[in-house]
Amino acid sequence: MTDPTSSLNPITNGNFPGHHVELGVETPLRLDSGAVLGPFTIAFQTYGKLNADKSNAILVCHALTGDQYAAEHHPVTKKGGWWDLMIGSGKVIDTSRYFVICSNVLGGCMGTTGPSSIDPENGKPYGLEFPVITIGDMVRAQTMLIDHLEIEKLFCVIGGSMGAMQVLEWASKYSSRIYSAVPIAGAPRHSAQNIAFHEVGRQAIMADPDWCQGNYIAQKKRPRRGLAVARMEAHITYLSEPALHRKFGRRLQERDQISYGFDADFEVESYLRHQGSSFVERFDANSYLYITRAMDYFDLAAEHNGVLANAFRDTNVRFCVVSFSSDWLYPTIESRAVVHALNAVAANVSFLEVETDKGHDAFLLDEPVLHKTLSGFLDGALRHNGLKR
Amino acid sequence: MTDPTSSLNPITNGNFPGHHVELGVETPLRLDSGAVLGPFTIAFQTYGKLNADKSNAILVCHALTGDQYAAEHHPVTKKGGWWDLMIGSGKVIDTSRYFVICSNVLGGCMGTTGPSSIDPENGKPYGLEFPVITIGDMVRAQTMLIDHLEIEKLFCVIGGSMGAMQVLEWASKYSSRIYSAVPIAGAPRHSAQNIAFHEVGRQAIMADPDWCQGNYIAQKKRPRRGLAVARMEAHITYLSEPALHRKFGRRLQERDQISYGFDADFEVESYLRHQGSSFVERFDANSYLYITRAMDYFDLAAEHNGVLANAFRDTNVRFCVVSFSSDWLYPTIESRAVVHALNAVAANVSFLEVETDKGHDAFLLDEPVLHKTLSGFLDGALRHNGLKR
Repeated sequence: MTDPTSSLNPITNGNFPGHHVELGVETPLRLDSGAVLGPFTIAFQTYGKLNADKSNAILVCHALTGDQYAAEHHPVTKKGGWWDLMIGSGKVIDTSRYFVICSNVLGGCMGTTGPSSIDPENGKPYGLEFPVITIGDMVRAQTMLIDHLEIEKLFCVIGGSMGAMQVLEWASKYSSRIYSAVPIAGAPRHSAQNIAFHEVGRQAIMADPDWCQGNYIAQKKRPRRGLAVARMEAHITYLSEPALHRKFGRRLQERDQISYGFDADFEVESYLRHQGSSFVERFDANSYLYITRAMDYFDLAAEHNGVLANAFRDTNVRFCVVSFSSDWLYPTIESRAVVHALNAVAANVSFLEVETDKGHDAFLLDEPVLHKTLSGFLDGALRHNGLKR
Repeated sequence: MTDPTSSLNPITNGNFPGHHVELGVETPLRLDSGAVLGPFTIAFQTYGKLNADKSNAILVCHALTGDQYAAEHHPVTKKGGWWDLMIGSGKVIDTSRYFVICSNVLGGCMGTTGPSSIDPENGKPYGLEFPVITIGDMVRAQTMLIDHLEIEKLFCVIGGSMGAMQVLEWASKYSSRIYSAVPIAGAPRHSAQNIAFHEVGRQAIMADPDWCQGNYIAQKKRPRRGLAVARMEAHITYLSEPALHRKFGRRLQERDQISYGFDADFEVESYLRHQGSSFVERFDANSYLYITRAMDYFDLAAEHNGVLANAFRDTNVRFCVVSFSSDWLYPTIESRAVVHALNAVAANVSFLEVETDKGHDAFLLDEPVLHKTLSGFLDGALRHNGLKR
């Protein structure tokens, strides 16, 4: 089935444009699992200019299938960056004012060290030899990047979905290094349903014989079908029933009547198949396993004897917590749990549930209320921080 | 991966105990697609005794992965029938009073003709040569069974999920042949999200190389992994987030701490894997494709120029429509659409939304309010019908 000329993983061949830094050379990164990793590479992009006192840096944290190309041109998809609506001159995250940093997460596949990278110990791709990582590890690696950039304190850490988990991790563990935090459409821990959906995706990948027990790169194969199924399933959870109904309903795909067959009769089927097949061109299957696992393991309260508020005790961070009314993957109740915990420690927190039918993916889309809220929050934080406008 | 001794499809080898009838011998069944099918077999079970005037028959319609073994002992799973809580002497569907019929749907894999059956024209399993069927076709085949049993009018047609679709089809097309109808946790048409989830399941099956383009029986293979992934995904949709949280939360499976690996660390993962692996022992992958397709195609309003009420015009059927508050697969709004349509034609309809956190699968579970409501409805219908208690 697989085109042999496309069987090489572009990710391992790829030279991803942008910044790369080798970290953990002298002191390796100690992972939550107990394993150590080093040296390792972080690939990152920056937008805007760091000011003289290095006080205008915003760290943007990406979601499961995101990457460092948050704004401007995306060199792999050839489209705009995943948050191009949000980041740029005159936009909400205004690059004429802020220095924006976005790094590919540890375990990723766009230049940061992950399971598709070459293990320096043996010259082969890590595959399943790559240590299992956590959201905590991803953020620890980010702090090393911020150290490398010689930035003492970030003006803001912001992100949606898994990006929000990283924001919460920053706020919990490194609160003295951030001035403000914006977790959007996130959760303080993965629910049983979240874990269940991820597990189906992982099983779909691992069921694909071309996964080769994780060793597909060495065998010049790629588990395209399994990864596509995982993506299709996940994509449904990023939308909402009303959004799917509005976008597709029961409309047929380029035909007047049903075909009485197993082709993509309905537009929604064709759309999902496209989501699956385009995803496999830009994402590594093992990275999908590792990053979903990191999300499943995330549980900020558990690290504090089950009391989420203890994760934020004595914080001086200014928070803006955002959820979307139709997000059923990380529903508002999860963001409210964060807000309640922050209230319990008298943190400075504003909370907004955006009314929208666009589901979880609303954080990526043109949501005027979201954009207006974030502009207002960042402006207010700027004033309080004494930064010149 | 596959145990070669278990590679034969038990379904095609199987002799399923119970009744079988060959139908469509003289006049084949004309399918909605235009194809004809005949002769074909319907496998069915009965419970209780048909009374002298044949007025006490209840047809129970099963869901996607159900079968004719609704009550008592299930010969394949070795457990109770799927609605054993509901059907039996002294139970809601009281076999000391009613004659209960449950037939395996057309396209199924428990003895009724489906894609794993032998095509009499060439002596080989149909595979994808089996014609694509609809809910309408399933019900048309059921009417032929009821004719064969020489029952003119059913006292009740009842079913949950896809069973509810069949109930609605009976009420719409054969209203003179039924006295009452109980669609539970159903919908008058499959939503875009429903189609999307089914499509992911189908793609998971078809992505499995052991599916062999649908020809796996002849090749002595079975797409176990793909079918298991399809089942795992679907199973999540049958539950609810609160039910998953209550049952599993983030509890670990036989370990004190996370393993930093891809084993089933969490109970919910282990549970889902078990659901997948046990399902493939009793279900045929092509049947899964055909039956999900039939559900996707179901759209009762579309057959009536988009006006659902027209599907029930001039009906004398007594309806009891039931939904579950936490069912997000066929949410209450779908049942309400049926009730509104019935109200618009002044039908006799009662409606109940059962408050429960058990999700879609609540129709299979011990839900006292559901059971009490159905008992009351059936008793009332009995009185009105003049049947002796």
